[in-house]
Amino acid sequence: MGYVKYPVEMLDRFCMTAFSKIGFSEEDCRTITDVLLLSDLYGIESHGMQRLVRYHKGIEKGIIKVDAKPEIVTETPVSAVIDANDAMGQVVGKAAMELAIAKAKTSGIGIVSVRNSNHYGIAGYYAKLACDAGLIGFSGTNSEAIMVPTFGRLAMIGSNPIAISMPADPYPFFFDASTTVVTRGKLEMYNKMEKPLPDGWALNKDGNPSSDAADVLSNIVAKNGGGIMPLGGSEEQLGSHKGYGNGMICEIFSSIISMGTTSNYCMKGRSGICHFFAAIDPKIFGDPAEIREHFSTFLKELRESPKAEGHDRIYTHGEKEIFATEDRKKNGVPVNENTVVEMIEFAKFVGIDPKEYFGDFKMGESKMFSQNY
Amino acid sequence: MGYVKYPVEMLDRFCMTAFSKIGFSEEDCRTITDVLLLSDLYGIESHGMQRLVRYHKGIEKGIIKVDAKPEIVTETPVSAVIDANDAMGQVVGKAAMELAIAKAKTSGIGIVSVRNSNHYGIAGYYAKLACDAGLIGFSGTNSEAIMVPTFGRLAMIGSNPIAISMPADPYPFFFDASTTVVTRGKLEMYNKMEKPLPDGWALNKDGNPSSDAADVLSNIVAKNGGGIMPLGGSEEQLGSHKGYGNGMICEIFSSIISMGTTSNYCMKGRSGICHFFAAIDPKIFGDPAEIREHFSTFLKELRESPKAEGHDRIYTHGEKEIFATEDRKKNGVPVNENTVVEMIEFAKFVGIDPKEYFGDFKMGESKMFSQNY
Repeated sequence: MGYVKYPVEMLDRFCMTAFSKIGFSEEDCRTITDVLLLSDLYGIESHGMQRLVRYHKGIEKGIIKVDAKPEIVTETPVSAVIDANDAMGQVVGKAAMELAIAKAKTSGIGIVSVRNSNHYGIAGYYAKLACDAGLIGFSGTNSEAIMVPTFGRLAMIGSNPIAISMPADPYPFFFDASTTVVTRGKLEMYNKMEKPLPDGWALNKDGNPSSDAADVLSNIVAKNGGGIMPLGGSEEQLGSHKGYGNGMICEIFSSIISMGTTSNYCMKGRSGICHFFAAIDPKIFGDPAEIREHFSTFLKELRESPKAEGHDRIYTHGEKEIFATEDRKKNGVPVNENTVVEMIEFAKFVGIDPKEYFGDFKMGESKMFSQNY
Repeated sequence: MGYVKYPVEMLDRFCMTAFSKIGFSEEDCRTITDVLLLSDLYGIESHGMQRLVRYHKGIEKGIIKVDAKPEIVTETPVSAVIDANDAMGQVVGKAAMELAIAKAKTSGIGIVSVRNSNHYGIAGYYAKLACDAGLIGFSGTNSEAIMVPTFGRLAMIGSNPIAISMPADPYPFFFDASTTVVTRGKLEMYNKMEKPLPDGWALNKDGNPSSDAADVLSNIVAKNGGGIMPLGGSEEQLGSHKGYGNGMICEIFSSIISMGTTSNYCMKGRSGICHFFAAIDPKIFGDPAEIREHFSTFLKELRESPKAEGHDRIYTHGEKEIFATEDRKKNGVPVNENTVVEMIEFAKFVGIDPKEYFGDFKMGESKMFSQNY
């Protein structure tokens, strides 16, 4: 698991060129690139460059339609449902959040639910768009089923992340988390490292706890049973039913109210993935500046509250992402060697010269062998 | 820990009479009684009759003001902020949810945030009010700090439950859960039983895991440090930061946007507890009947999906509450003997004859020694 560090500008140029070659407009290339890069800048490696292979394959198979025309199927001053018609998730996602923001600016609140889309990257990107506009932003998405409901043995619900972002000082509140205990990407990392999975993460095909990443992953792909536990594990004693319930909230706002594809049917032939986007203008509750100050004070009190033995820092959500961004802008983005290989294949697929970006890259020659973000 | 079973009608009559003696209107008595009884009917013992002592003491100390006049401080077609002026939580809570419902019926969505209130019972009661009106209902509340943030050792956030209810067949979806791994009531039960706490629940005053219920509870009261872990435990490996983030979402909609008292200052002199209520009319997304059917199908698929080894049933949220209600209506509500003692004291405090309700109750003479709901 060697890593190579690349400048942000190089990765930006690579994505812009590659997606442009596929046929996306310059504006859409900008959106797709921004979503991918924000993830890598924030240290969420699983959803950055390492996701390119999924888009490559999705476009190749026709699951992602480059020329899709999303359409609004229902609309009110506070809501909309969009049928993405198999569009690239990031493209319809950004448009949907912009619609939610516009509704919030006019009506105070906007909720937009999207059906028949594709993987849209990190949920937090969309929540952040609303926050950047001075609003409280929410977004979430369902996905191919990966979460096993409490007492079950078959994955029925996606990783179903819910993200929220809200203005605060010195940096915004930014919380983006799957409702499973971990994401599939974490299992894939343990598998590549040939390390046993920690207790409390995954289930085998019979619904019993498993530390065998390779076995769990192959069962998920074959739909033999097993998957990832909800936040709270697999037993009610530690709150499994709560993580399962949080996953349901995400499902309701993505696939249910849009009359879309529930997670248990996603990626069967068609992607079917559904998202939701919500924006709320704090001014409908009072003075936004006062609310922002009140919130910032509470966040500061949390950070400054007494630490547990062995810890010297309490984070508020979004802090780590700020630090990771500073580091990556200065020192470059660490990219896994396997991901570089996938990017080189992607370059060849779209017809650009990989050497222009990756020079004479050779697997196993990178000098960086771990990263701790 | 003996239990006595009482008919629902008797407990109803007791609450109605007791709160009427304190000076609440018949309508307010009905609301308070309904909230308490729904909790006991649903099998959420911690928030039923066993909470009476808290209201008794709150009224005695003047923290709960029987004659409080809550007032709307901000209002738009989709939102409101109410200052409860120290009213009984249930009374202002029901009024706030009715306001959110009215706004949702007119504008599609209504969000109402309430500050300076008191303990309002189960969050689910209010979410259910919206669901009973055909809407998607949400409610949540902050509380005296009990959740220790990830890597901290002082409780800074409440148990911060979030409840959601939505129409479905054959019964509605009803999910009501604290964002801590368990509630304080669970610790109190283990303490009464003199049993060690399970791993992954609580922290001692230094922020290290503890199984000593008595020690944890006394430290919480004395604000020495320690408390309950967020859903996901105390380490990031099992998602502690996710439970902590969910607690923050509840805090934002209760105390932050209302400019109210954050959990770390609740119950210091004044209660200061804050709530939120949201209602969304599904018709702003499509045909409510179609959405309801789509949701019901998914819930059925979840229940019918393959079970883990050793389990013969997967529940969807709200099922257990339906079964508990049927049982209690038929067989009576199990009430802990300690709670009966508190109810007898409450009767004396308000000036009614306990014998009329509890006969010649004597501690330790009940024949029921456990209950499994």
